[in-house]
Amino acid sequence: MTKKIGKQTLKLQYPPTIAATAAVVGQKEGQGPLKRYFDYISDDSYFGEKTWEKAESTMLKQCFTLCCSKGKVSPEELDFVFSGDLLNQCVGSAFAMKDTNVPYFGLYGACSTMGESLTLAAMTIDGGFAGTVCALTSSHFCSSERQYRFPLEYGGQRTPTAQWTVTGSGAAILKSNGNGPFITHVTPGKIVDAGIKDANNMGSAMAPSAYETLKAHFEDTGRSPDYYDLIVTGDLGVLGHDTLEDLFRHDGMTLGKSYNDCGILIFDIQKQDVHAGGSGCGCSASVFASYIMQGFAENRWSKVLFAPTGALMSPTSSQQGDSIPGICHAIAIEKTL
Amino acid sequence: MTKKIGKQTLKLQYPPTIAATAAVVGQKEGQGPLKRYFDYISDDSYFGEKTWEKAESTMLKQCFTLCCSKGKVSPEELDFVFSGDLLNQCVGSAFAMKDTNVPYFGLYGACSTMGESLTLAAMTIDGGFAGTVCALTSSHFCSSERQYRFPLEYGGQRTPTAQWTVTGSGAAILKSNGNGPFITHVTPGKIVDAGIKDANNMGSAMAPSAYETLKAHFEDTGRSPDYYDLIVTGDLGVLGHDTLEDLFRHDGMTLGKSYNDCGILIFDIQKQDVHAGGSGCGCSASVFASYIMQGFAENRWSKVLFAPTGALMSPTSSQQGDSIPGICHAIAIEKTL
Repeated sequence: MTKKIGKQTLKLQYPPTIAATAAVVGQKEGQGPLKRYFDYISDDSYFGEKTWEKAESTMLKQCFTLCCSKGKVSPEELDFVFSGDLLNQCVGSAFAMKDTNVPYFGLYGACSTMGESLTLAAMTIDGGFAGTVCALTSSHFCSSERQYRFPLEYGGQRTPTAQWTVTGSGAAILKSNGNGPFITHVTPGKIVDAGIKDANNMGSAMAPSAYETLKAHFEDTGRSPDYYDLIVTGDLGVLGHDTLEDLFRHDGMTLGKSYNDCGILIFDIQKQDVHAGGSGCGCSASVFASYIMQGFAENRWSKVLFAPTGALMSPTSSQQGDSIPGICHAIAIEKTL
Repeated sequence: MTKKIGKQTLKLQYPPTIAATAAVVGQKEGQGPLKRYFDYISDDSYFGEKTWEKAESTMLKQCFTLCCSKGKVSPEELDFVFSGDLLNQCVGSAFAMKDTNVPYFGLYGACSTMGESLTLAAMTIDGGFAGTVCALTSSHFCSSERQYRFPLEYGGQRTPTAQWTVTGSGAAILKSNGNGPFITHVTPGKIVDAGIKDANNMGSAMAPSAYETLKAHFEDTGRSPDYYDLIVTGDLGVLGHDTLEDLFRHDGMTLGKSYNDCGILIFDIQKQDVHAGGSGCGCSASVFASYIMQGFAENRWSKVLFAPTGALMSPTSSQQGDSIPGICHAIAIEKTL
């Protein structure tokens, strides 16, 4: 009675509806090309808190509350919440969700977390375990810089291949009943390690995992890339985007004009001085919860393959000379069944 | 068509079988009362590696390989793996699993991770998404001390309420077909914050979450504590164990003689100088994968409620004066249906 098709794709039998989404971002993100799609742009990078870690939690909680409000769902109606973030021990999520009184599944998928949370949330509804579930995640430029790289005050130079961690959060409420858009298929990813060791070139480190997951998705479903109006990877940025296209080209395949990347979409790469593009859990999450989902309402597309990517490293693993394993989870979202 | 009963418990319709488990631990754990139940006791705390973080990954991978071997399952036959650990960015799990070629869900549930991974693995099978799934986790005394507390070389004094992080890992293979023991119910936990701020008293911080989850489990299922031959919490240790009994006593209820805690079971508390008991993801995981599961085979019990607990804090959150939110996931394991 398995719903698995092919190697690693799940075809949902009772596709859940994405009933509501919300995106809360920082000032820089609000100055980018997706400005009009975000629900809330904060001028205060501290979100009223005294530390960046608390700021991230407050932003995520604000996003959660807004999503519940937009979906006309009270937190008590949620069966489960799936959340995670980049902070050590995922405290961004834990402190954001600790007073919501909703059963909580903590995830760590690095920047692929929105893909992982949507996948598990969709499975939870399809499997008959829940009627209403929330999937969410966040990242914050300042908490990330401090934890992964240098104190901001140090003013460290960024390499050309570096990406800019998005200050942003995205949340989605999934329901068993609804009129779509529906999550119809999910392709949970394997960890792929191409041996890249440059922690300032995450796009190249993650591209091979996006390649493996997308390839598996197309093979498993029998769909070609042109089935989708939009194929959008996580935060590969400019370099990872091109690497992914190269990898498919070697197979004699192309992702076509409908391929884009959340790390490219969220910023004006040149004008906003973000080097190779945006990154962080909040990058794909906030782009998904704003631009991508509103594109369904505005009839810009009706079939989207959303594939957030993550780099499963830590500062310690990089300092110890380890490579950067990547992961990518793909979610097929379709306006009608 | 929801399988939810009561507030937050899921009654599985197609209860998966726990087909195999494996536990790999360190020397100190191998000198404790559960010695004879562990599959492998390593005399080398480095597990042949050069750093403690790599040692933890190698231990977890060894445990995974052993579990597959005991279950006569090759990694390729696994549909999914659910894993997480305490290390920043969960690199223990990521590096252990990166070459297995199995779709991977990364989790962060702190010391409750074995509860979270078993819960999601069981739901994945029950929901018809998979036939064979692995749930696993680990912790390592040395990598934990360095990350959470002091460099070992510093020789910091431990407070009487402190617990000893277990060097250990546990893995379980769940199958859709089998003759049990079965996972029949799961009660995923809510985050509970009782306001405890002492990072050297995790047992007290986590006990309220165990109380809430167990209370919900009993209410939702209509079962009383004496339904189970063994109720075993995560790593509450001596203090948390007593706090939990107190909390139930206030309700005029008792967990009875069948109540125990993995943090108490794994060490000889007095002789092994572990203060309030064992802790870490590997504590409940290795006790579950050895002593608890072998107890079914040896007819010591046929109904067990396994309830790992976790503290969702980080050194940063504690340094910033935050409280320590706890979580507990409960899993009902029954020999027959």
